[in-house]
Amino acid sequence: MNISIANITSQFRRKRSTGLPPGTPVFTGEKTPETAISSITVIDFGDGGFSEKEAVSIEECIPGTSFDMTRWILVSGLGDVENIQRAGNAFNLHPLITEDILDMHQSPKIDIYSDIAFTVLKSLYMAPDGGLASEHLSIILGRNYVITFLEKKSSIFDPLINRIKSNSGRLRREKADYLLYTIIDCVVDNYFEVTDRLDEALEEMEDCLSSSKATITHLRSIHNLRHTVTILRKSVRPLIHIVNELKHEELPNMQTNLTIYFKDLYDHIFQVVETIEVQRDMITVLLDLYLSSINNQINKIMQFLTLIGTIFLPLTFITSLYGMNFEYMPELKWHYGYFYALALMGVTAVAMAVYFKRKRWI
Amino acid sequence: MNISIANITSQFRRKRSTGLPPGTPVFTGEKTPETAISSITVIDFGDGGFSEKEAVSIEECIPGTSFDMTRWILVSGLGDVENIQRAGNAFNLHPLITEDILDMHQSPKIDIYSDIAFTVLKSLYMAPDGGLASEHLSIILGRNYVITFLEKKSSIFDPLINRIKSNSGRLRREKADYLLYTIIDCVVDNYFEVTDRLDEALEEMEDCLSSSKATITHLRSIHNLRHTVTILRKSVRPLIHIVNELKHEELPNMQTNLTIYFKDLYDHIFQVVETIEVQRDMITVLLDLYLSSINNQINKIMQFLTLIGTIFLPLTFITSLYGMNFEYMPELKWHYGYFYALALMGVTAVAMAVYFKRKRWI
Amino acid sequence: MNISIANITSQFRRKRSTGLPPGTPVFTGEKTPETAISSITVIDFGDGGFSEKEAVSIEECIPGTSFDMTRWILVSGLGDVENIQRAGNAFNLHPLITEDILDMHQSPKIDIYSDIAFTVLKSLYMAPDGGLASEHLSIILGRNYVITFLEKKSSIFDPLINRIKSNSGRLRREKADYLLYTIIDCVVDNYFEVTDRLDEALEEMEDCLSSSKATITHLRSIHNLRHTVTILRKSVRPLIHIVNELKHEELPNMQTNLTIYFKDLYDHIFQVVETIEVQRDMITVLLDLYLSSINNQINKIMQFLTLIGTIFLPLTFITSLYGMNFEYMPELKWHYGYFYALALMGVTAVAMAVYFKRKRWI
Amino acid sequence: MNISIANITSQFRRKRSTGLPPGTPVFTGEKTPETAISSITVIDFGDGGFSEKEAVSIEECIPGTSFDMTRWILVSGLGDVENIQRAGNAFNLHPLITEDILDMHQSPKIDIYSDIAFTVLKSLYMAPDGGLASEHLSIILGRNYVITFLEKKSSIFDPLINRIKSNSGRLRREKADYLLYTIIDCVVDNYFEVTDRLDEALEEMEDCLSSSKATITHLRSIHNLRHTVTILRKSVRPLIHIVNELKHEELPNMQTNLTIYFKDLYDHIFQVVETIEVQRDMITVLLDLYLSSINNQINKIMQFLTLIGTIFLPLTFITSLYGMNFEYMPELKWHYGYFYALALMGVTAVAMAVYFKRKRWI
Amino acid sequence: MNISIANITSQFRRKRSTGLPPGTPVFTGEKTPETAISSITVIDFGDGGFSEKEAVSIEECIPGTSFDMTRWILVSGLGDVENIQRAGNAFNLHPLITEDILDMHQSPKIDIYSDIAFTVLKSLYMAPDGGLASEHLSIILGRNYVITFLEKKSSIFDPLINRIKSNSGRLRREKADYLLYTIIDCVVDNYFEVTDRLDEALEEMEDCLSSSKATITHLRSIHNLRHTVTILRKSVRPLIHIVNELKHEELPNMQTNLTIYFKDLYDHIFQVVETIEVQRDMITVLLDLYLSSINNQINKIMQFLTLIGTIFLPLTFITSLYGMNFEYMPELKWHYGYFYALALMGVTAVAMAVYFKRKRWI
Repeated sequence: MNISIANITSQFRRKRSTGLPPGTPVFTGEKTPETAISSITVIDFGDGGFSEKEAVSIEECIPGTSFDMTRWILVSGLGDVENIQRAGNAFNLHPLITEDILDMHQSPKIDIYSDIAFTVLKSLYMAPDGGLASEHLSIILGRNYVITFLEKKSSIFDPLINRIKSNSGRLRREKADYLLYTIIDCVVDNYFEVTDRLDEALEEMEDCLSSSKATITHLRSIHNLRHTVTILRKSVRPLIHIVNELKHEELPNMQTNLTIYFKDLYDHIFQVVETIEVQRDMITVLLDLYLSSINNQINKIMQFLTLIGTIFLPLTFITSLYGMNFEYMPELKWHYGYFYALALMGVTAVAMAVYFKRKRWI
Repeated sequence: MNISIANITSQFRRKRSTGLPPGTPVFTGEKTPETAISSITVIDFGDGGFSEKEAVSIEECIPGTSFDMTRWILVSGLGDVENIQRAGNAFNLHPLITEDILDMHQSPKIDIYSDIAFTVLKSLYMAPDGGLASEHLSIILGRNYVITFLEKKSSIFDPLINRIKSNSGRLRREKADYLLYTIIDCVVDNYFEVTDRLDEALEEMEDCLSSSKATITHLRSIHNLRHTVTILRKSVRPLIHIVNELKHEELPNMQTNLTIYFKDLYDHIFQVVETIEVQRDMITVLLDLYLSSINNQINKIMQFLTLIGTIFLPLTFITSLYGMNFEYMPELKWHYGYFYALALMGVTAVAMAVYFKRKRWI
Repeated sequence: MNISIANITSQFRRKRSTGLPPGTPVFTGEKTPETAISSITVIDFGDGGFSEKEAVSIEECIPGTSFDMTRWILVSGLGDVENIQRAGNAFNLHPLITEDILDMHQSPKIDIYSDIAFTVLKSLYMAPDGGLASEHLSIILGRNYVITFLEKKSSIFDPLINRIKSNSGRLRREKADYLLYTIIDCVVDNYFEVTDRLDEALEEMEDCLSSSKATITHLRSIHNLRHTVTILRKSVRPLIHIVNELKHEELPNMQTNLTIYFKDLYDHIFQVVETIEVQRDMITVLLDLYLSSINNQINKIMQFLTLIGTIFLPLTFITSLYGMNFEYMPELKWHYGYFYALALMGVTAVAMAVYFKRKRWI
Repeated sequence: MNISIANITSQFRRKRSTGLPPGTPVFTGEKTPETAISSITVIDFGDGGFSEKEAVSIEECIPGTSFDMTRWILVSGLGDVENIQRAGNAFNLHPLITEDILDMHQSPKIDIYSDIAFTVLKSLYMAPDGGLASEHLSIILGRNYVITFLEKKSSIFDPLINRIKSNSGRLRREKADYLLYTIIDCVVDNYFEVTDRLDEALEEMEDCLSSSKATITHLRSIHNLRHTVTILRKSVRPLIHIVNELKHEELPNMQTNLTIYFKDLYDHIFQVVETIEVQRDMITVLLDLYLSSINNQINKIMQFLTLIGTIFLPLTFITSLYGMNFEYMPELKWHYGYFYALALMGVTAVAMAVYFKRKRWI
Repeated sequence: MNISIANITSQFRRKRSTGLPPGTPVFTGEKTPETAISSITVIDFGDGGFSEKEAVSIEECIPGTSFDMTRWILVSGLGDVENIQRAGNAFNLHPLITEDILDMHQSPKIDIYSDIAFTVLKSLYMAPDGGLASEHLSIILGRNYVITFLEKKSSIFDPLINRIKSNSGRLRREKADYLLYTIIDCVVDNYFEVTDRLDEALEEMEDCLSSSKATITHLRSIHNLRHTVTILRKSVRPLIHIVNELKHEELPNMQTNLTIYFKDLYDHIFQVVETIEVQRDMITVLLDLYLSSINNQINKIMQFLTLIGTIFLPLTFITSLYGMNFEYMPELKWHYGYFYALALMGVTAVAMAVYFKRKRWI
């Protein structure tokens, strides 16, 4: 079975514009209606309560200095470059950060500045239509706020928002740094779903290739799966390094001891990476299975045809034997000679078929 | 020969529920009658003696502060999530620990807290029916107690309990940390049994493929063995890291110097891992053998059929020679012409068969 | 599709002269009119303004001691060894540096001296004619100047010069160390263009091999692509080490804190290297695809021919059947016997063709 | 050519008994008459002289406290577990040491205790009958003594004993630590002999496969060689680690500065390991050669048979041509028509044979 | 094209004598007239001048204590073991050094003693006859002298001696440590020549296999090239480690700061090693090309033969059709029936040939 990745592979390959000064913000994603319009959602939460509103401009989102409430600013839609640049100015971000937020080809990474931490992730998840979807996600962790930038409007953070709203789990009681952890945890949870789906697809393919005949469609599916695993690997592997840094390094705005949480996260990512490595091996196995199945089919057909040819050999020999023109050939004079010849041929053919059947060649 | 692993592979692949807050306890194993009911066995031992009893609730198992006796609490059956959560509360465990105890997909790991050490292992062993069985085993090492959580009731610790009961070896005289070592040692001992069994199966397969004809059943067995080795590797490799940490790091409740014991354990695990790597190579060799055997079979058949065809070539040529209608063909007038032709064909066929035999083509 | 690399491979393989004392300057590139004549461009920039002039001799380019202006000396054309040696003397360079500037086979590297930093890079870019072009680029970072040595006159630095001229970006306001960073960044940007082009070529090839028939031309193209990837890898991989050193080590003339810029550059190079590794795997996949396509073609033809042969088997059998000379063969006397035989053969042939069609063997 | 390893592979695979407390001494080798009886030889040497005697019990071998003489206690035959356990008690060895001495499956390792150093090695050497022989060798280095435990009586130490006896080399003048070095050096020297023998066998096999036809016997030999290389690798690789530790770490009873000797030994072992890696690659090459040879054979035969078939095609065509029953066929009336047809066929056959010969297809 | 290595492979494989005490000097090379006689050349140089003379005995070569002149003692021919041992005694060398000087199988290494540095290298170069030649080269760096030991008289140092004689470059003005550097540099320069030669040979082979038919000779050449690359790799790789140590460690007799020179040398060796790795990959590619070429040839022949067979199918069918004995077959009565049949067959054959030609099957 297949996982459609058409819309994703392009993201891992489109052209970077060269020759621009470093720090020039350029949106390198696809300019669709979905990515064109930025929407800004502001969520404030804390012991004091919870509020959610849509903001018109990024400037009005700048949080106060109080630590009582934590602010989560969700920016979706990166097509409007000017908007993002204004956000960068409002929150005093380095031009290289603004460039990375807009560069869909940026690999996952973490940069720790004196006042903020900047993380780039690839959020992969199974879209409702069964295809693999990918979001370029940038996270800024500030003093008492978190900003997330998403390529386009998406529902991947809905479970988190609901948890804050309904005050389930510790999330509402914790600070911005715990929110950062929860967001990454949420992204990693989705990886599990993707690898599970991939495992299923790989297994279906293995069953399919072991039991039925391989066709060229299978080859395309295998290449498709290989692409998916490559994308997954490229997205997840840098996370090992990122979470390792989060585990050990002091974040600039760390208020809680989250080491144990990041250690747990690290274990999960490691598990995903190990699964991906096994899946890579599996792809090679599938290709071998495919090739050996294709080969086997051709061989079986050729063998069958050759067997047919072999059965006809003695028959044709007998017919040409009695087609000889010798003057003295006693059988030719027999009254039932023709039927004797026919019987002889029938017996020979059946005997050979039985022999081949027994040898399991047919 | 085969090792049945049907019941295990699922454990390494079932779906994690996503979208839940971290630390939410969810049992991710199969809900069978065996896992549904928790049973709690409490074993106290020390110089003073030995007692064993079944406990009804986990709360009554909390040990006193005395160091005279060591308490081993064996919890089996993790299907009743509430029960495990109560245990977590009674022993003051971090929510992430409770989550990992219940998550059958958690890879082996060690977490060292200020007051306890938490280890997750995969206990693999040969079930009485010849199949490979796996248990998700979590171990808590506390001040004067050890708690073990097993997916379902199992007899893997019976030799240890008997040793304590009969006071054989040093075990009864030692403290909780030595018990932890003994439990891991017992798990590792079972790995040897599994790799030995695998070695046998691999060798049988190699003999089988070298001597007799390969069939599609062999291919399935090879894939089965590959799965087994992958599971084994996934279970054992993290142990290198775990025991290495135990070797070097000060455990929170370490009362004896166990470095030499953990070093020995480390050597054993290393040996298992090396064996597994050799077995992985072996699988590749077996696949090559299989493919070359399949290929060889087809080739042999095709060669045999072509030889038959080649023997008939001159025979059919002779018959059609004497089927020509030339007015003057002296042989046709001979009285024994027909028999001479038959003899000629017989001699030709025998000569060719002998030639092929000598060339060892048949 | 193809990337022409004929002019490049030679650069990675021509003969070094042996037996000379270390530090002897020898131009190891091709002596063409383009490389023969050295041209020297001097660019001065700073807050004060911008000036660009062609210099006749290298000696007149030695900058003053003021830090107000930064001087960029572009030397193109290394064929005139004496000229370069004079430059080495004028700027007091170690003989080994002069040797490396002239040695086109020198791999990328960085040497940090007490007063200057010396870097060798391979600038790869897509030439206007669609081929891959390579320049051996050496960079000297001095107190308030940068010298770049290029194998032959080239336009790779035009965007940078334009940026300084038009005062766009930070470049004109920064010092020599930032110029070094910008030059390397510019070289790395071109790598992205090359890998994108390669990705396209690899994909075209994959589509081509999956859909149409493989020919020997494809094999040559694949080997060509393999060469390109090898050259790219050899040129880019040492950069990881170089930029890593720039990231961590104090440069002798560092006046700005560029760590964050070099960190960003490092991420980009890492991305290029990862892409190259994926492309290497891809080459293997393409070769497998090619071989399996070639194999498939031959097999399909052989199968088709064998099927034709199989259809003729019963036809020829029937004809020789009725070519037998038995005295009593009723069919031979039938008036429409001949047409009955023809009809029998026609029906047999059609039936077999239909059977083969249904089995999808034709 | 072959190296018989039947008796060795079992040693690398037999069953460990599970469920026993750690430190329980169990002999895991084969119980043969050779291993059953322990023999103890005691050699004293020093500037003062040399004495050699057989000891009845291990207790009488405990050396005095003088450093004038060094004592070497050679224990051969480990089948009598009780005996070895008494030795362990007499020399105050940790139970884990006694267990490892008796466990034939223990990989090579070194354990450094406060008073002694304990090393396990695998001594591999060419037996007089041309087969590969293996001994499980444990060495204890004490204050002024060395104890060696060998699986069964063997002559591998005869050169060393002779050197002490005849006072050749430095050995008799040195202390126990130098004896340890000499013993390991002697074991490593034997590895060279084994790899040389393997090199010869691999080369013979390569020549054999390049020149003559591959048979199934060759495949078995290749698998045999692969087993040998695996065993060798498993035995030698841990030695790198062991000698590295001896090179750097202070041994408890080190009286001489042996760093330079252990460094030399390290180089030798490294050389053996590199040779083994090359041999592993060689095995793969041999397998490829074998498969390509087998393939080639079949192909050659099929090609030959098809050529024969092709030569008969026009002959049979001519005969059936003149077997047609047209009323008017001029050739049939010719008096020498038959001979003309025969000649035509002869010429055709010869022409085709010559053509095929020239194309080098036959 | 080929590189003859017959005389070299033996050097990498001949038997070490076992059972001798460590430090026993044994010449393990071939005893030829060239190696049998030792010749000793003594070169003194410095600011004061230059002298060169042949020495009769090694004892007369011991240099004075003055640092004004540097002495280079070239010993060629190691067959006379006693001579080398006397040299060892005269210069007070450790017995292990003398053993390594004489052991042709010793891998490259460096040993740094308190007063001298001892280096073993493999000098590989292209002999005048086009074959690959190898010398076992040992270098002793003392206070004010360098001793080089060469297996047999050779001209590899002639360029160096000429440079000292003619006082070109810095060599005559420098001390013994710079001489050591120059000698190693000279050896490394020769590696470039060898890898260039190998590159050529590999490329010729690739062109050859792509354009013309592969024969068994090509296979032998490929194996030959593989051997050469293996030897080269074994000789060069340890140099990375050696020069790295020279770069970082203080040599006992270091008088000049040579770090920058050794760093340059390190870069060169690294370049050679990278080239060798690419060449190793290339060998695999060549083998694949060879196998696919061989396969292709056979397939082309079989396809051609099968096409011939297919063309004859309808011809033979037509002949046997008109060989049937039906009483009423109108065509048989036609006067030009025979010629009509011949024409029918001719048309069929031509039509099929054209069809096959168009499909590019022929």
